[in-house]
Amino acid sequence: MTLTLYELTGKDDRRFSPYCWRIRMALAHKGLEADFVPVRFTDKEIIAFSGQGKVPVLVDGDTTVVESFDIACYLDDNYADRPALFGNEIARGEARMINHWTNSVVHAALQPLVIDDIYQHLADEDRDYFLETRSARFDHSFAAIQAHRDSDVLVARNALTPLRLTLAEQPFLAGDAPAFADYIVFGAFQWVRSISPFKVLEEDDPVRRWRDRLLNAFDGAGYATTAYDG
Amino acid sequence: MTLTLYELTGKDDRRFSPYCWRIRMALAHKGLEADFVPVRFTDKEIIAFSGQGKVPVLVDGDTTVVESFDIACYLDDNYADRPALFGNEIARGEARMINHWTNSVVHAALQPLVIDDIYQHLADEDRDYFLETRSARFDHSFAAIQAHRDSDVLVARNALTPLRLTLAEQPFLAGDAPAFADYIVFGAFQWVRSISPFKVLEEDDPVRRWRDRLLNAFDGAGYATTAYDG
Repeated sequence: MTLTLYELTGKDDRRFSPYCWRIRMALAHKGLEADFVPVRFTDKEIIAFSGQGKVPVLVDGDTTVVESFDIACYLDDNYADRPALFGNEIARGEARMINHWTNSVVHAALQPLVIDDIYQHLADEDRDYFLETRSARFDHSFAAIQAHRDSDVLVARNALTPLRLTLAEQPFLAGDAPAFADYIVFGAFQWVRSISPFKVLEEDDPVRRWRDRLLNAFDGAGYATTAYDG
Repeated sequence: MTLTLYELTGKDDRRFSPYCWRIRMALAHKGLEADFVPVRFTDKEIIAFSGQGKVPVLVDGDTTVVESFDIACYLDDNYADRPALFGNEIARGEARMINHWTNSVVHAALQPLVIDDIYQHLADEDRDYFLETRSARFDHSFAAIQAHRDSDVLVARNALTPLRLTLAEQPFLAGDAPAFADYIVFGAFQWVRSISPFKVLEEDDPVRRWRDRLLNAFDGAGYATTAYDG
């Protein structure tokens, strides 16, 4: 049985969705092969069968699962004989907190640093859609927001403090080895790396060293798609 | 074998250390009886046997354990047949992240709201110590800092966003039932409640409802010491 993951793409086949990266890594963690199907923002008809309009969408035989956290739960429940993404209910519960911290704190801190880079790396057909759906959230143009990134990045690095302190004590968020909590946060850095040369993390930042360990995990699965070196 | 927990106290026997509350709850979770020994900030000689100067200190027969997270790990490893505080290595790793988030974000957000209330509820003998060790961290008097709390509390409530979003999905941080991750964050609210009538959480805040569930857990262990109703 082959799994299929529908994931967001930009121009030059850049797979830049942080949520889709979580599942790429979860599949690698489980040692599961999958076909990866690129979907542009405006390609909604490709995933219409899922009953909603967002990627990632995982198809496993007759089963379709959406929402990255729910997909991870599905994989852990249905491939329980393979390495655990959570392994018990406490770990699953705690990972939801890390999920919400990532979505509401990390993504919010990183977005202004690369918002125009995202726009510049979209497929041409997606640009109007992105402009319409995102501009309402901001008072300024993407370029004007991103123009402050040399100072905004200091705020973003500071927002990563709980992650940095944790990685001073153990190599991964999940302890001695990575698990889904790591992939949740790692996705945010793959999002940036896929569409921007901007260096969010300094060379000697423990967060960067952790990110690099994850990039190299699973035979370098994190390097599999078009990205910058940052 | 009786366990002994050395924990911080203020005047009127107020047990206000957030770190000590984590262990009170962990002991209740494990169904372990303990003697609770109050220690003032300047009572360092009472815990000198531990080789350091901070509470909580847990003594279990010939074993002495310090640092709240290490005590939780000790209890889970040595009382593994009782309800799990973590239960696997992934949950333990993730809880360290919640630990650092609580210490660096939640405590930092709550401290200015009650810093003068803490001072006012210290034993007389501890006041000079507190003033000397804490004042260097602030540019203003405790009373002046706390005077802004009606606006600062809005910032603090916003800092709780990841917790609030998580509790919209599940009753506890650890999922359907509480575990150590919950007690880590709960300790912060017990700290406030022990020394201040100030209402950090609004009545309809899911975080408040979660806190109240934890207050009522284990036959109301959270109500066992002197506190305000807040």
